[in-house]
Amino acid sequence: MNEFSPVAELAETIFDLPTPALLLDRRKLETNAQRMRSRVQQLGVALRPHVKTSKSIDVLQVLAGADGVPITVSTLAEARYFFANGVRDILYAVGIAPVKLPQVAVLIRAGCALRLILDSIDAADAVQAFASAEGLTIEALIEVDTDGRRAGVAPDDDLLTEVARRLGPGLAGVMTHAGGSYSGRTLSEFEEIAERERAGAVTAAGRLRDAGFPAGIVSVGSTPTVHYARTLDGVTEARAGVYAFGDLVQAQLGTCGVGDIAISVLTSIIGHNRAHGRVLVDAGFLALSRDRGTADFPVDWGYGAVCDAATGEPIEGVRVESTNQEHGIITALEGELDFSRFPIGDRVTILPNHACATAAAYDRYFVTQGDGRVSGVWDRVNGW
Amino acid sequence: MNEFSPVAELAETIFDLPTPALLLDRRKLETNAQRMRSRVQQLGVALRPHVKTSKSIDVLQVLAGADGVPITVSTLAEARYFFANGVRDILYAVGIAPVKLPQVAVLIRAGCALRLILDSIDAADAVQAFASAEGLTIEALIEVDTDGRRAGVAPDDDLLTEVARRLGPGLAGVMTHAGGSYSGRTLSEFEEIAERERAGAVTAAGRLRDAGFPAGIVSVGSTPTVHYARTLDGVTEARAGVYAFGDLVQAQLGTCGVGDIAISVLTSIIGHNRAHGRVLVDAGFLALSRDRGTADFPVDWGYGAVCDAATGEPIEGVRVESTNQEHGIITALEGELDFSRFPIGDRVTILPNHACATAAAYDRYFVTQGDGRVSGVWDRVNGW
Repeated sequence: MNEFSPVAELAETIFDLPTPALLLDRRKLETNAQRMRSRVQQLGVALRPHVKTSKSIDVLQVLAGADGVPITVSTLAEARYFFANGVRDILYAVGIAPVKLPQVAVLIRAGCALRLILDSIDAADAVQAFASAEGLTIEALIEVDTDGRRAGVAPDDDLLTEVARRLGPGLAGVMTHAGGSYSGRTLSEFEEIAERERAGAVTAAGRLRDAGFPAGIVSVGSTPTVHYARTLDGVTEARAGVYAFGDLVQAQLGTCGVGDIAISVLTSIIGHNRAHGRVLVDAGFLALSRDRGTADFPVDWGYGAVCDAATGEPIEGVRVESTNQEHGIITALEGELDFSRFPIGDRVTILPNHACATAAAYDRYFVTQGDGRVSGVWDRVNGW
Repeated sequence: MNEFSPVAELAETIFDLPTPALLLDRRKLETNAQRMRSRVQQLGVALRPHVKTSKSIDVLQVLAGADGVPITVSTLAEARYFFANGVRDILYAVGIAPVKLPQVAVLIRAGCALRLILDSIDAADAVQAFASAEGLTIEALIEVDTDGRRAGVAPDDDLLTEVARRLGPGLAGVMTHAGGSYSGRTLSEFEEIAERERAGAVTAAGRLRDAGFPAGIVSVGSTPTVHYARTLDGVTEARAGVYAFGDLVQAQLGTCGVGDIAISVLTSIIGHNRAHGRVLVDAGFLALSRDRGTADFPVDWGYGAVCDAATGEPIEGVRVESTNQEHGIITALEGELDFSRFPIGDRVTILPNHACATAAAYDRYFVTQGDGRVSGVWDRVNGW
């Protein structure tokens, strides 16, 4: 059960909203969406947005443009929700757990072109045995490991063809995700990581084809690698998710500017602790998330960047230093905090370190056009 | 919108549940509840459980025993939910933001004995002005700062009586929360922190009474201070929340054992990365939370302790080392990981660092009796 204040639905401006609340600036979303569409067009590949960031059909409609797009999901709850909202071509990009196969079958039988990913003989056997017993074809991509960060079969591992053989008619191609793209810091590092992702996936697909297996889909991506790739030759589709909203980590990776970040948490000033130089707000770690993604970057934003609620412009010299469950603590980076900037009851907005983590605490977006008016309420799907 | 697999509702055992899922061992909950009831009885104070941990009326019924209890909440969504479920006496223990006062008025007019907290003249004036305009009495406790960690008026600050004067007929007493109790490591430190919390609240109440103000309620608490207090003389009620479930941080604070932890995340083994000694599970940072609370303690559990799903017993020598959104990565603390202990498709359970943070990702508990059967599904209220 996810509850939200009944008053919130009636809000005309963000200043009528009970706090904390998640705001979405539609103009910034549209700009981010357009930039990515241009980018993949330039690279000559299809776009398959990862909806794990927004989990919202309304957001997807902005991302997809007029023609609609296939999508990537991170949960079967997302798959059910987007399929119920008219999306048919869905890649579930987390290694399949056999206990979920009955839910997969329900979606496929209902007409969803749902594809799975896996990287082991045991998972391939489980999928194939289940599909045979159910009289279904269940398609899967083999996950390829191109940076040693998480999962996947190495492009040159003999396991690749063995998994393909076990999958039989279900083999649809390969996919990889350069999670390591978040560790890049220079242009040449980003380009190298993107090229390794591309080359690994293309090599794996080539080995499968050489061995007589079909590998129609060659899927790569992360927001940084799609942003920095010099070429995606041999790739058929790019996956990216967080570009829709951007965040403080992405801004330091150079894939967006701080001014492009489309979501923020609206919060109220609830206290002054003058003895310790702290302003308290009612957005704690549930509202902001515990994500400290910028801790490893040149600018450490703490738990988020504090902005003027009316203009969305960052307030210089402060950050959210720490959080408790429903308290955020704003401090000055150096020197004295100017308490007059933060009267009790005033609102500020907080830009997130990591958009996916912060948005996950909310079941709706209050949509703005950057003018303070609430122009819509968009839902999102959480859970599993 | 919070979705959960339709299959989950039909599960007879935990091994039928799609993963990840939140399990609650009812026997452990009952033991933890009974221990706290005995503790506050021994201390001679009333118990006002903080429901921010469980956010569940079913859990509260176990905590409260036959007689029912007043509660502490951290959001107005909790206040609405528990009031709708028959709880009348509610303390909203986060400094009030004026924008929330219309929602407060709705609850009070409906018959809820809802009290607020605040620690400034501006907040007191806002509450008093709103109450006068609405023809209501809105009661509030003054938050007292007894450890310099977050909010509150120092017990000896003249601001205390000034805030009391502004509140007028709404003044109901004082409250404090020793957030610093989490920094204790030895018995004498815990006892000292608990005594400072008690003494600060009692001092503040005494100063108010000496100045002619009523201060009927003297409310203190945190799970560690209620556990370690040698006396709560002068205090009228104790607040504690996380004791209901316990967690890996509480186990290191000595308020529970690892075997007392009542919630865990059920997850499936989805991959083996033998080259890097990693087992992958389908519980990532959304399912486990980003909380790294044990990082500052002698035993750092990473993102959680891995247990045998059938017995609930910890599996020695491993932990959840890192997380992505929907991936958890289990590694060996030292030496080689025994992959045969983690077959693809098997289930393990993960004990949380911080129960409040982990439970917040779920909208229901799958209740067990420790025998693997699912004996019930209990809801919880998220959001604001």
